[in-house]
Amino acid sequence: MGADAPEHRMSDTNEQQAAVTAEEPPALSASDYARMIARRAKAASARLGALPGAVRNQALAAMAEGLETDQDDIVSANEKDLDAFGTGPEKAAMADRLRLTPERIRAMADGIRAVMRLPDPLGGAPRLQRRPNGMQVGKVRVPIGVIGIIYESRPNVTADSAALCLKSGNACVLRGGSEAIHSNTTIARILSEAAQKSNIPEGAVSFVERTEREVAVALLKQADAIDLIIPRGGESLMKTVAEHATIPVIKHDKGVCHMYLDADADPAMAERLVINAKAQRPSTCNALETLLVHERIARTLLPTLVQRLITAKVDVRGCARTCQLCPEAKPATESDYGQEFLALILAVKVVKSMDEAMEHIAAYGSRHTEAIVTNDYPAAMRFLREVDASAVMVNASTRLNDGYEFGLGAEIGISTTRLHARGPMGLEELTCSKFIVLGSGQIRE
Amino acid sequence: MGADAPEHRMSDTNEQQAAVTAEEPPALSASDYARMIARRAKAASARLGALPGAVRNQALAAMAEGLETDQDDIVSANEKDLDAFGTGPEKAAMADRLRLTPERIRAMADGIRAVMRLPDPLGGAPRLQRRPNGMQVGKVRVPIGVIGIIYESRPNVTADSAALCLKSGNACVLRGGSEAIHSNTTIARILSEAAQKSNIPEGAVSFVERTEREVAVALLKQADAIDLIIPRGGESLMKTVAEHATIPVIKHDKGVCHMYLDADADPAMAERLVINAKAQRPSTCNALETLLVHERIARTLLPTLVQRLITAKVDVRGCARTCQLCPEAKPATESDYGQEFLALILAVKVVKSMDEAMEHIAAYGSRHTEAIVTNDYPAAMRFLREVDASAVMVNASTRLNDGYEFGLGAEIGISTTRLHARGPMGLEELTCSKFIVLGSGQIRE
Repeated sequence: MGADAPEHRMSDTNEQQAAVTAEEPPALSASDYARMIARRAKAASARLGALPGAVRNQALAAMAEGLETDQDDIVSANEKDLDAFGTGPEKAAMADRLRLTPERIRAMADGIRAVMRLPDPLGGAPRLQRRPNGMQVGKVRVPIGVIGIIYESRPNVTADSAALCLKSGNACVLRGGSEAIHSNTTIARILSEAAQKSNIPEGAVSFVERTEREVAVALLKQADAIDLIIPRGGESLMKTVAEHATIPVIKHDKGVCHMYLDADADPAMAERLVINAKAQRPSTCNALETLLVHERIARTLLPTLVQRLITAKVDVRGCARTCQLCPEAKPATESDYGQEFLALILAVKVVKSMDEAMEHIAAYGSRHTEAIVTNDYPAAMRFLREVDASAVMVNASTRLNDGYEFGLGAEIGISTTRLHARGPMGLEELTCSKFIVLGSGQIRE
Repeated sequence: MGADAPEHRMSDTNEQQAAVTAEEPPALSASDYARMIARRAKAASARLGALPGAVRNQALAAMAEGLETDQDDIVSANEKDLDAFGTGPEKAAMADRLRLTPERIRAMADGIRAVMRLPDPLGGAPRLQRRPNGMQVGKVRVPIGVIGIIYESRPNVTADSAALCLKSGNACVLRGGSEAIHSNTTIARILSEAAQKSNIPEGAVSFVERTEREVAVALLKQADAIDLIIPRGGESLMKTVAEHATIPVIKHDKGVCHMYLDADADPAMAERLVINAKAQRPSTCNALETLLVHERIARTLLPTLVQRLITAKVDVRGCARTCQLCPEAKPATESDYGQEFLALILAVKVVKSMDEAMEHIAAYGSRHTEAIVTNDYPAAMRFLREVDASAVMVNASTRLNDGYEFGLGAEIGISTTRLHARGPMGLEELTCSKFIVLGSGQIRE
């Protein structure tokens, strides 16, 4: 269950998406279809928020069970997607992510059960403040309403997102990528049917079966019915959303993450953290993309570190000084800095000072995850204070910027938007608040 | 100092705005001008967040003093605005709101000092959670960055907004209405100069001196430099923002507020709350617009209540049953329900049940402030749970939905957006968060 940051870009070509749906001539225009789905979700959402947590949990249990019971349907739908995706060495890694096995379906179901067991994010334990005039004021957590999630990732995101939204009392409108359309449609149908049998209103788990770009664009304009859009994907998706959305958006955008090895870094720790941050899972948004090294430790530290990176199959692209110290490194170009490789590639730069490192991060980073490795206390405190990112870390791998690792229980992704939710976004961040006032006849003087 | 909800619609005609600036031919295009202002604010913002609270407070003290020292400049600028605004009985109320006297300028300065004395919203007291792997994770409050505020209200909003943004470490780009352009420009110049003398970077308090609509529209598109737009004003402003903004928006939109007098309402309390909610200050967004009365108490309660409302100069527009019980009431039309009058007008409807009242609120309300008057405990709890609004109240005047009354210390307005900040928006809501991680070499397993 989303134990990791989202993986991007299985595909976002519009041509491919259009091709998939060409077989079935649409009865409604893209915008009427989007409006219909959004309104049905909104109608469901009005009743959903009032349901007790026990009802939502029963539905989640039924949804998990439904996936396991109907796993053969999911596997055959998935085979259609795999056939359409094609084979070939360049496609192998992507195809593997797309593939659903009985084991992976069980993992999806277990993920839903894990969400079910989390504390109910609704209501909360409001602290009632007694005001001088005697009225008591508190803030309770309520669902956001209808959440539209547009994603391009593995089909398990369909189950994860539906579970997180339902647990938090939100209706969802899910729009996945075309390469997983058959798998997603089948998963969503099973989840929605199981939810309805458990007294969840129809439309609470809505899936957009039509994959034309026009439908996605029309969804972004259903401000009357959809309260929040969460896009998870690559640059072209983010651009489409930025251009067309008239609804509040919380982006899960790219991570150009840096690690700065300070003059006072512990060499063994630095090596361990760099290798982990870069190589443990390079396709994630919290993986390391650029390493900055203080010149005072470059000579003693870089040669063995670069050697170990290359052993770990990392393509090291260094500045002039790095290449001088490590002849195995390739020379970096200017465009390597600030790039989100999402692959076993690492840009390396030797800097004269912590100031230069922080300036580089401010200029090239995407404010996602930034880390310093140091034993110098003032340097650590200054880095924490002055660097701006969703998570700023001392002596820890950037890969740990994650909802599970941070103790949120579950995450729908890592928000790169500053407002409402920044960084790992858990169940609580899928709610909003309302003030409640318990009065005894107070008026405004 | 903004001790009250924003007042809307001093004017938002584009023609009038264009006329004011026609005298000075612009050197830059609207969009270049907007970009220049936004970028200058962004450059200031990068340094502003790192300044200690004491420096921000010294600047606030200097800004307050500046307004008092230069009050003659403000009064003469204000006279130009008043001359341009014109006279006449229909303009008297508006002109009075636009007018600045030495006393009102002193009140503005005192408002800035009150903000200065509030606790620093930055940093906060993060609870560090120790994770199973030993790393400690916490959340600290940081400035949002650059906040664009587009308003149409009284000139004191310029001083209020600048103070609240500076206190919370944000740079602001202020764009006021054309009718107060001379007053606002003078106030903003004084504030900005005082801030700069107190080591606040230039551009931290930025004011948009050009009032063409094109400049406002261009501001809404400076996503690279402005992090948040807060529009405060009428429907045409909200529409412009919804259409053009590519930046996150927190709306301070209209309040169509209801009070429901339940069958078990205390008659004396009901009367006091209705009169206060409607008449204490009818031009505000948390004033009462529609009264719903349970049929069981309509006969005993409505005749005297309507009589008292009429004595308080309220134009009462009632449903058929209301008019039958109270011949002094005028018949309401369908369009009276759901309307934000912002004036001494009240729509009244007799309902058969609490269900009908809640359905009416769901259909006609704007999710701003909704109140029930009742001595019935289950009815109160159900209303609190099921009604959706930024504030839901039992036995209290809707006028109390306010940052000061709720104990936030100060407010920049009442947000009708569900995300990030809903309801009264104080200093804390002008910040966002970043995670900090204190590690000792942790990696992702």
